[in-house]
Amino acid sequence: MHETTEVLAGLFLMFAAAKVMGYLAERLNQPAVVGEILAGVLIGPSVLNWVHPTEFTDLLAELAVIVLLFRVGLEVNVREMMEVGLLALGVAVVGVVLPFVAGSGLVIYALDADLPTALFMGSAMVATSVGITARVLADLGQLQRRESRTILGAAVIDDVLGLLVLAMVAGIATTGSVSWASLGTIIGLTVAFVAGVLLVGRPLMLRINGRLPDPAQGYTVFFVAVVLMLGLATLAAQIGLAAIVGAFFAGLILELGQRQHALDHQVQPVAEFLVPFFFVSVGMKVELDAFMNAQTLWLTLAVLVLAMITKVAAGWLVAFRSGWLSSSLIGVGMMPRGEVGIIVALMGLSLGVISQDLYSVVVAMSVITTIVAPPILKVLLTRIVRQEAASHSGALSGAGVQGDGGH
Amino acid sequence: MHETTEVLAGLFLMFAAAKVMGYLAERLNQPAVVGEILAGVLIGPSVLNWVHPTEFTDLLAELAVIVLLFRVGLEVNVREMMEVGLLALGVAVVGVVLPFVAGSGLVIYALDADLPTALFMGSAMVATSVGITARVLADLGQLQRRESRTILGAAVIDDVLGLLVLAMVAGIATTGSVSWASLGTIIGLTVAFVAGVLLVGRPLMLRINGRLPDPAQGYTVFFVAVVLMLGLATLAAQIGLAAIVGAFFAGLILELGQRQHALDHQVQPVAEFLVPFFFVSVGMKVELDAFMNAQTLWLTLAVLVLAMITKVAAGWLVAFRSGWLSSSLIGVGMMPRGEVGIIVALMGLSLGVISQDLYSVVVAMSVITTIVAPPILKVLLTRIVRQEAASHSGALSGAGVQGDGGH
Repeated sequence: MHETTEVLAGLFLMFAAAKVMGYLAERLNQPAVVGEILAGVLIGPSVLNWVHPTEFTDLLAELAVIVLLFRVGLEVNVREMMEVGLLALGVAVVGVVLPFVAGSGLVIYALDADLPTALFMGSAMVATSVGITARVLADLGQLQRRESRTILGAAVIDDVLGLLVLAMVAGIATTGSVSWASLGTIIGLTVAFVAGVLLVGRPLMLRINGRLPDPAQGYTVFFVAVVLMLGLATLAAQIGLAAIVGAFFAGLILELGQRQHALDHQVQPVAEFLVPFFFVSVGMKVELDAFMNAQTLWLTLAVLVLAMITKVAAGWLVAFRSGWLSSSLIGVGMMPRGEVGIIVALMGLSLGVISQDLYSVVVAMSVITTIVAPPILKVLLTRIVRQEAASHSGALSGAGVQGDGGH
Repeated sequence: MHETTEVLAGLFLMFAAAKVMGYLAERLNQPAVVGEILAGVLIGPSVLNWVHPTEFTDLLAELAVIVLLFRVGLEVNVREMMEVGLLALGVAVVGVVLPFVAGSGLVIYALDADLPTALFMGSAMVATSVGITARVLADLGQLQRRESRTILGAAVIDDVLGLLVLAMVAGIATTGSVSWASLGTIIGLTVAFVAGVLLVGRPLMLRINGRLPDPAQGYTVFFVAVVLMLGLATLAAQIGLAAIVGAFFAGLILELGQRQHALDHQVQPVAEFLVPFFFVSVGMKVELDAFMNAQTLWLTLAVLVLAMITKVAAGWLVAFRSGWLSSSLIGVGMMPRGEVGIIVALMGLSLGVISQDLYSVVVAMSVITTIVAPPILKVLLTRIVRQEAASHSGALSGAGVQGDGGH
């Protein structure tokens, strides 16, 4: 019972700190999510040491990010995403290759690391954390933009590519050689999963949509939605993809049809309740002590700069036709590594391929890219919206970025 | 990552089983909660062994029951509860004394148990699980009835009395004598907590109520509500009360004012998402193997009958003026021991005062009283509503119990 009290006190501190710091961040014209992550750094072991990450907070955070990605899927219009499919694919591929090469090269050059370590470091820099950017875009009410759809599409493809790279690298690290069989299995399962969702799940949903009871009459549709969300998340995790990819696709299936709006009204409070635990949890994992060492500090800076430049470069290279602001927006939107980079680093640590110091560097890179991207996104978006308002002029001149959509 | 997959699969199975079995229970004209608990028995270690209770599911269930009691508090009108205060107090006191004496006496008579074991067994039979009855009453749309308010009031007082008894008995079990100092401390803290909530929390809420932003503009009120819920739950747990008592009082504070309705719209989906995990978790803890033994089986039957009769008798003795049906309704409403009995039994087990077999008996008693009460409640309520409709006749003759309020 005493342990339960401690857990409850932790949850209270996490939620309260997230909301207070999120509020302060918004007051300073920053996205609330930055405040929530910094709240985690503040109350976590590195500064005040009020709350420790535990297995429970980790799993609650995992559940939270599943609900978050489900909600993002609910709001993504697949038809509109198909329109930006080729662009998203290009951004994703270049945005995987550049950081992978840069990350691997850096640790070979700077630390004289062996190949498995270098490859692991490269793959920790690959995957985009769609959650952070999606939250910022949603908060600013800009999820429907062409750039936003490109970012979300590229981030999803990135997740899949990142997991393929991870599977390959983990194979090399454990067996010393690439296992083409297991790589082929993962690629096959991934294609089957995505095809199943798009070619079976969505048409099926369209057919049964009209027969589902009205949301006003009860929670039946909500229950079906939760079952689908947990089910596809489990399935995705079981075949070796990330659980969040499954939750995202569950959202894509349920986005269909006219009930989407009422469903989001029920999913939103659940997300608002759970998601702060995810972002505070990300912040709590930061270990500031590791950076008292000059070499680690320089390495972190180098990794950080490469992690940021390579993603922005991917945006510029692939989306140059969209103009400087839009291509930068896309690149910056791909910057945050968030939980995905941390998961890769954790796996490398458990395999003995990544040292404790390198692990701290990856965590710092993941967290800092996550903290740095939202304010830049906000500045870029504000400029773009202002430019559009200026070119539309007249009646539309008052249109601006909504500053606090989700609050 | 593999462990996370297993946890996710568990959550998926728990939620899906709860909803399928809950649906079947309603089809058979039983409350959904019975189906959800039986779903836990079914998928748990005793039958299919698909999901095990883990620390994570225990803590998630704890969080769920906190949200459930918070929601119950949100819907309780304190002024109306004060009107039934004396009746509720009477039902609670008699409903604590009778089961305590009966439970202690039984194990002394049947097992020749020593005093600490007998006292522990008595206190495991004391506390009412308000969650189960509240859910049934809410599902039937009858939370505002005089009997319902009496039950809720008595159950809350019961929780406080039960925890006092537990604190006293635990003191006897560990030190061999009653510690009047610690008992006095607990009583003092309890009074201070309740007085603080009613005399400071609610008046304060009334004052700031008008200044809170409109719920339509964002989630600010919801965030304040969650912080208050987690904060008072933590505070209650920290001073030795149950966390759910704190959550219930947080609901009572926020019930004030006109924003209650909009707030409940946000709390409801969170409860609908989390609460099934609590009831499935209660079911998963049932160990059917223990009852292969004839002595344990007879003991369980005796404990069960005493547990049920003593609570109904408390209703009859104290509320006899309300008539046979209403006093029975109140007594039956106090029957479910649910999680509270299990918590007491767990504590006795860890102190070495309760044997593994006695523990299984208490768990079975808690679960069976929980499963038995809802259908009886439903039958009694339907009769009462029919009688009222008959006596009101004419215009109101069509009024009946709402069969599926929350679904």
